[in-house]
Amino acid sequence: DQPLFLIAGPCVVESEQLALDSAGELKEICRTLAIPFVYKSSFDKANRSSHHSFRGPGLEAGLRILEQVRREIGVPVLTDVHEDTPLNEVAAVVDLLQTPAFLCRQTNFIQSVARQGLPVNIKKGQFLAPWDMVHVAEKARAVGNQRILVCERGVSFGYNNLVCDMRSLAALRQSGSPVVFDATHSVQLPGGQGTVSGGQREFIPVLARAAVAAGVCGVFMETHPRPDEALSDGPNSWPLARMRSLLEMLKEIDSGVKRRGLIELEPA
Amino acid sequence: DQPLFLIAGPCVVESEQLALDSAGELKEICRTLAIPFVYKSSFDKANRSSHHSFRGPGLEAGLRILEQVRREIGVPVLTDVHEDTPLNEVAAVVDLLQTPAFLCRQTNFIQSVARQGLPVNIKKGQFLAPWDMVHVAEKARAVGNQRILVCERGVSFGYNNLVCDMRSLAALRQSGSPVVFDATHSVQLPGGQGTVSGGQREFIPVLARAAVAAGVCGVFMETHPRPDEALSDGPNSWPLARMRSLLEMLKEIDSGVKRRGLIELEPA
Amino acid sequence: DQPLFLIAGPCVVESEQLALDSAGELKEICRTLAIPFVYKSSFDKANRSSHHSFRGPGLEAGLRILEQVRREIGVPVLTDVHEDTPLNEVAAVVDLLQTPAFLCRQTNFIQSVARQGLPVNIKKGQFLAPWDMVHVAEKARAVGNQRILVCERGVSFGYNNLVCDMRSLAALRQSGSPVVFDATHSVQLPGGQGTVSGGQREFIPVLARAAVAAGVCGVFMETHPRPDEALSDGPNSWPLARMRSLLEMLKEIDSGVKRRGLIELEPA
Amino acid sequence: DQPLFLIAGPCVVESEQLALDSAGELKEICRTLAIPFVYKSSFDKANRSSHHSFRGPGLEAGLRILEQVRREIGVPVLTDVHEDTPLNEVAAVVDLLQTPAFLCRQTNFIQSVARQGLPVNIKKGQFLAPWDMVHVAEKARAVGNQRILVCERGVSFGYNNLVCDMRSLAALRQSGSPVVFDATHSVQLPGGQGTVSGGQREFIPVLARAAVAAGVCGVFMETHPRPDEALSDGPNSWPLARMRSLLEMLKEIDSGVKRRGLIELEPA
Repeated sequence: DQPLFLIAGPCVVESEQLALDSAGELKEICRTLAIPFVYKSSFDKANRSSHHSFRGPGLEAGLRILEQVRREIGVPVLTDVHEDTPLNEVAAVVDLLQTPAFLCRQTNFIQSVARQGLPVNIKKGQFLAPWDMVHVAEKARAVGNQRILVCERGVSFGYNNLVCDMRSLAALRQSGSPVVFDATHSVQLPGGQGTVSGGQREFIPVLARAAVAAGVCGVFMETHPRPDEALSDGPNSWPLARMRSLLEMLKEIDSGVKRRGLIELEPA
Repeated sequence: DQPLFLIAGPCVVESEQLALDSAGELKEICRTLAIPFVYKSSFDKANRSSHHSFRGPGLEAGLRILEQVRREIGVPVLTDVHEDTPLNEVAAVVDLLQTPAFLCRQTNFIQSVARQGLPVNIKKGQFLAPWDMVHVAEKARAVGNQRILVCERGVSFGYNNLVCDMRSLAALRQSGSPVVFDATHSVQLPGGQGTVSGGQREFIPVLARAAVAAGVCGVFMETHPRPDEALSDGPNSWPLARMRSLLEMLKEIDSGVKRRGLIELEPA
Repeated sequence: DQPLFLIAGPCVVESEQLALDSAGELKEICRTLAIPFVYKSSFDKANRSSHHSFRGPGLEAGLRILEQVRREIGVPVLTDVHEDTPLNEVAAVVDLLQTPAFLCRQTNFIQSVARQGLPVNIKKGQFLAPWDMVHVAEKARAVGNQRILVCERGVSFGYNNLVCDMRSLAALRQSGSPVVFDATHSVQLPGGQGTVSGGQREFIPVLARAAVAAGVCGVFMETHPRPDEALSDGPNSWPLARMRSLLEMLKEIDSGVKRRGLIELEPA
Repeated sequence: DQPLFLIAGPCVVESEQLALDSAGELKEICRTLAIPFVYKSSFDKANRSSHHSFRGPGLEAGLRILEQVRREIGVPVLTDVHEDTPLNEVAAVVDLLQTPAFLCRQTNFIQSVARQGLPVNIKKGQFLAPWDMVHVAEKARAVGNQRILVCERGVSFGYNNLVCDMRSLAALRQSGSPVVFDATHSVQLPGGQGTVSGGQREFIPVLARAAVAAGVCGVFMETHPRPDEALSDGPNSWPLARMRSLLEMLKEIDSGVKRRGLIELEPA
């Protein structure tokens, strides 16, 4: 019943300037809308379709910039970790960790991340039924971390396409963890442009509105001042300049839905 | 930009009493919420999973009761027609016609129904991509009927399951026809109980909220005072006693969304 | 345990000459390979994606040519019927009837076709689980026709794509009816070229070999001397000139599989 | 054009006795059928649905037994490695490495495994289109290892179900790597029994026959003398006592298909 929060930022850390500017702008938008905000950006894209694609600044440079965002802009920071990330180095810098959808079934990995003690946003695999996330969240909590979030980002639907099943957002509540909706990876077309993934940016507001009305705790969105020039996931990034109007709408839907309560949970 | 309308009623005409009572109650709820209302019920379930299931009262008795609802309750009435329905007999009684999802690609059938001159709600096939409904709507309009609605009701997702792709609601607008969301067939589990279809009634509000927030002209819902005793589609019918609270919520979401406008349609 | 049979021919009746020539050539190939052969062609394509596409010569001209093939070439003939076909006129001419996949759940239609007394090849809907074909075959047999065949032709897999689940061929045996595999519609990309369906002709031999090895009674294939000029379903038609080599392969697989028996049916 | 090879063994190393017995029996069957054979077993099941399930004997004990199989039975041995496996310890003992489907997009992991210099069997992700395996194989070869195999094991099809697309086996050939078909994980029902995955053992022969007829270089199968008592993946393991009859059938199909050649590859 808490108001909607936002996790947002450029997909990958492109430069110090972009990081500080986008974090500052997002912080200001969220402040005026009373939306709790977490800045997100990746230091390494560890599972690109092709090994020729840009992977990011790497651990050291990436963490340095994220630390700077945290200190200078004054916002909590999230980043995603991978199968071979030195977890303690990352955990020393950021406020939340995130695990990739492809890795949600790797028991050791999930538990190693959870052991860092930070809140963890676990993305649901594109291959996983929503009710099977109960076991994933349990694996994470079994090492003593109760601050686990579960995140829907679309499920495989034929080839090179994902579909967002809004029933999933209700089913994921059974995991006992706050549910986050990733509105930008959900419009990804995996591998849809040959050597890179495509995306349907125009559907981001449709899915974001739908998910917030379905009832979620938070929304995750990748954003960029110039999506067409983004070094990663541009096709499914939302333009920063249009973020405020989208969030205003989501905030209003969220308020109405949470004020009235989710009637599917009431006894018949 | 018109406010949300509702098409609702028990799946099949079970009795005169049920028809009049449910129509009266729905009319009253919609009046207080300023939701335009169309009563829906079927005289014949022509595509049951098994030929042992209840099919309805048949054409003559069914039309007599629908005519009575129309006259005594004073609401417009919709019913669905099938491959061998005498269309002119039905069209003489009801206000809107509806075509089944399985039949959306049958050119002669769609055009014969459209030729009756009434508004037609065309359900999208469970096998059809949303952008392919453009051709279906065009077939219908080609015989001179401009009052065509297109209706999403879920798409095949593995076996005995459907998923509602909210992107579809945006894509269907390209057909040039008002978009309706069928919130109850969308939670059907086709063939999911062996000889009959199952359903996930608990997800109806989730999907209905999501679809209205995505942006639709109308919502379609099957309802029953006692869904567990319904003679058809009970598992995916919404309890009549809980219709008001659900519609209040949908009305609020719809107002907010339409007041602000669907930002995905604005120029970047 | 009967040897593999073949149902084949051009998708639609294009001309008398094409019909006689292709029937003659197919008959000769099948004779030398000892493959029982049924000629297939449609007089009307009743569910084209767009109403602008070629539909065929119509009932009268189409039946005249099919009758001619039957008489002059001396092969049994199959054609498909639709929601508004005068069934008795067609049944008076051909040897087998076929029902479209989209119509497999229409109880009245399936039973009307079965009542004609001819063998009926019922195509499984793209939206149907294989075990649900039991009910469809039962509907047909309930009117007294025991000569029912069930036919797999792919199941919806995301948008504009089908996938052939080879488990289905085993599951369909539970219907008590001979199982046919449609190797050419299975490579269709429904709606995949905008206003018409596309196809992946290159995968026809892969799927045909796989299905015959999985174990089927018959194979269905659309063929054309010049697929790129075909008036319907060219992208998923197999070139007539390459039919012999494909059938030789299928015949060999079929013989081996049926000689050894399908070991999944033996008790463990 | 090489004759079919087999990768087979119990899913997990349960005991020294089971390992030696099953390896010996499989070796003998394959010798009489002239099928090149690789023994497979896992020392650690790193991605079980639930963290309560049996994971295996662990690295040290597992490798000791695999080494014993290799030496005493005289067969090459394959095992799978995970995100945190000490790769050089494993590579020092086995003949081939295998990577899990969930991890196929992790660039560092795939390249670290390939750098060990052994042949690597890369399983295709349940979320991946077959043509996107080209990039995965390229990533592996980019570190200098040319002995890469690609393996189909089913693709997500709705929830808790997989489907095997036989077109994939043809499409995977474009990766330039030998194609392996995993006939037992392909009948898995992921998460299908609540806390564990289910399986449809009865469909293993259907899919294996189909895949060999479609055309593959090798088949992968998990087997167990008493599948119902297996400590992992029992529901989708093939009974060891019935392995010979299944392989006889596959050998015959493979010989026929490879003798005639895959006609889809010939010029039209």
